[in-house]
Amino acid sequence: MHTRRAFLAASAAAPAVLRGASTRTLDEIEKILASGNVKGRLTREDIPTPALMLDLDAFEHNVARMTKHLKDNGKAFRPHGKTHKCAEIARRLIQAGAVGACAAKISEAEAFAREGIGGLLVTSAPVGRLKIERALRLARLKPDTIFSVDNAQNVRELNDAAGAARIKFNLAVDLAVSSRTGITPGEPGAALAQLISTQPNLVFKGIQAYAGHSSHVIGFEARRKSSQEAMGRAVETRRMIESRGIECKWLSGGSTGTYNIDSSIDGITELQPGSFMFMDVDYNRIGGQDGEVYRDFKNSLTVATTVISKPADDAAIVDGGLKAFSTDKPFTPVAKGIDNLPYNWAGDEHGKLNLARASRAVNLGDRIEFVIPHCDPSVNLYDRMFCLRGDTVEAVWRITARGLSQ
Amino acid sequence: MHTRRAFLAASAAAPAVLRGASTRTLDEIEKILASGNVKGRLTREDIPTPALMLDLDAFEHNVARMTKHLKDNGKAFRPHGKTHKCAEIARRLIQAGAVGACAAKISEAEAFAREGIGGLLVTSAPVGRLKIERALRLARLKPDTIFSVDNAQNVRELNDAAGAARIKFNLAVDLAVSSRTGITPGEPGAALAQLISTQPNLVFKGIQAYAGHSSHVIGFEARRKSSQEAMGRAVETRRMIESRGIECKWLSGGSTGTYNIDSSIDGITELQPGSFMFMDVDYNRIGGQDGEVYRDFKNSLTVATTVISKPADDAAIVDGGLKAFSTDKPFTPVAKGIDNLPYNWAGDEHGKLNLARASRAVNLGDRIEFVIPHCDPSVNLYDRMFCLRGDTVEAVWRITARGLSQ
Repeated sequence: MHTRRAFLAASAAAPAVLRGASTRTLDEIEKILASGNVKGRLTREDIPTPALMLDLDAFEHNVARMTKHLKDNGKAFRPHGKTHKCAEIARRLIQAGAVGACAAKISEAEAFAREGIGGLLVTSAPVGRLKIERALRLARLKPDTIFSVDNAQNVRELNDAAGAARIKFNLAVDLAVSSRTGITPGEPGAALAQLISTQPNLVFKGIQAYAGHSSHVIGFEARRKSSQEAMGRAVETRRMIESRGIECKWLSGGSTGTYNIDSSIDGITELQPGSFMFMDVDYNRIGGQDGEVYRDFKNSLTVATTVISKPADDAAIVDGGLKAFSTDKPFTPVAKGIDNLPYNWAGDEHGKLNLARASRAVNLGDRIEFVIPHCDPSVNLYDRMFCLRGDTVEAVWRITARGLSQ
Repeated sequence: MHTRRAFLAASAAAPAVLRGASTRTLDEIEKILASGNVKGRLTREDIPTPALMLDLDAFEHNVARMTKHLKDNGKAFRPHGKTHKCAEIARRLIQAGAVGACAAKISEAEAFAREGIGGLLVTSAPVGRLKIERALRLARLKPDTIFSVDNAQNVRELNDAAGAARIKFNLAVDLAVSSRTGITPGEPGAALAQLISTQPNLVFKGIQAYAGHSSHVIGFEARRKSSQEAMGRAVETRRMIESRGIECKWLSGGSTGTYNIDSSIDGITELQPGSFMFMDVDYNRIGGQDGEVYRDFKNSLTVATTVISKPADDAAIVDGGLKAFSTDKPFTPVAKGIDNLPYNWAGDEHGKLNLARASRAVNLGDRIEFVIPHCDPSVNLYDRMFCLRGDTVEAVWRITARGLSQ
């Protein structure tokens, strides 16, 4: 009586649900995804929501623009892997000219190293015996790895451990140019560099200095002032280290917000931005060099959702909530391709859309994509990202280091 | 010159780092974790941070208390799996007397079903052809699964699909007693129940009604009023359905905040709280029946962190930030076992502690555990939880449905 064809015909007769609907069956889609051979065999509409979607044209534009800017300004490029946590992206950035990848934690760096990524800089200190054992293992696998430190006791323990293991640790002094980790710039930083340089099993590589607060200052001139002040202290510390007769060839810092400020600061040798490749609502808001919206890089990353309930004519519920977007910012996801469609959090699983002024009708079953408030912790919610060329799925990239914050 | 023993001795000479330090090597710990046979072979200090930790005594107390309360009050118990996303916990709750488990989305229910969990109630509607195909597959695997719906068109599509597949779908009418999904209570809800009951391939099971807003009302009397009002509309809709000659034996709702309110409302047959098993800062704040702090259930869940930097005498940085805790609440993690130790967000990877008034000294390398602001989306950040009896790791439970919000 009811055949599968009849069911499909019944669906076809319901245009509101069909808007943007897939033409493949679930089994076909899952078979293609499981095969790993997705190129050109799936479209945007085949991907179950909520899902993390990457527009490859925009992503490649962003990578090319950042790479060219840093090359033109004579700075090395070690993009931060805490943003993407994806070995495939780290590999593509290196192919585009990056010297390696930053990692926020050792477990993240391990995940990259296991996939063959070298030139790693771990931006948090390996504190305590177990973390030091982990650092030893990573240094054996990728001897060019640089570890950041900000504490003399930790430096001595690293030296002892390296000696016992008959290896050398490459260390960077992490400077507190912002309000997170790091040792005070100036004399304290220089003294720590000197301590490292006198230990037999350590190699002093240079300075790690991340001015997190500068990155998000709204307005280009205010941001320039903030970053010049913060990074100026790092450059000054570099000079103090060299005035002690210690070679300090390398100073790494910078962010998506300050890339075109830090790239003209003498003494900084390397930039480590991450968010530029994806962008998010937060970075759009900080303003560009030539306008109120920061448009140097395109919004390549979205979360795709589906309208699963229409509780009223002017309201719709989508299937992405606190588990689909990180919520650490005071603003919400922004719909892509539909204007005046405010999203409000509606718990762990849902978002509520106000349709009163929306630029087009929104119906049950519609797929709606949103630019993410803050990209890094949102990417960390997903096991994979779906990479699109137009509406065609070109690849599925595993988020290799998802959940690895150890 | 430097042996491993010498390294350990050097560490032992550094008491600040050794506080709470593990005595096992990283290789030993990882071998034990990989074996799956952890019982009694690891302690709290062996677990790399950040990590999700479950105090089993507190967890079991919470489960026993909720189970007894609902049994004493003649209500069935179908705890919400969106909180734990863990098949092992779902299994233990059923052993304790639960009739099954709720799941927020089909992919979450699928993960439970694959691990043998039955009695599933999916609390979001399967909208669109691909979600309906998924519902068919789940209904074949676990024929007692109930799906929630709030839309007539979706009901007709489910009927057609079930007919084509020669199965029956069990459906619940999802009532909008709060501001998320659901159909308007009263006549609209009763009419949808009637539509379901007239379709040949659908079985009308009853009502799903989650009053999310009531759960978090601060103050017991205000909360009672809110939940009685919201759930009263669900009970009234149940009567309206029955007055149409349609059997409506089942009404499921309730939450951790309202369990001892809803359990005395006639007409509600089943409660579906989830957070009670873990608790969080949010639920502690809503106030109990007999005091300003809600203490019916114990805080069994924490995130363990390590102090990895001491930028000043009165400040410490721990290795858990926006990727270790969900941040959707206007308050921050609360240290367990140390008073007056405010935590402030310090980016994706770190938290900053103000030590000025802390009840004990905090040193580099110290492990500090925090009660989580909001348990559900924080659990969703982790692949596993470490289950402790005192300081001994008794089990490691996989968070089976982590990231499954589809």
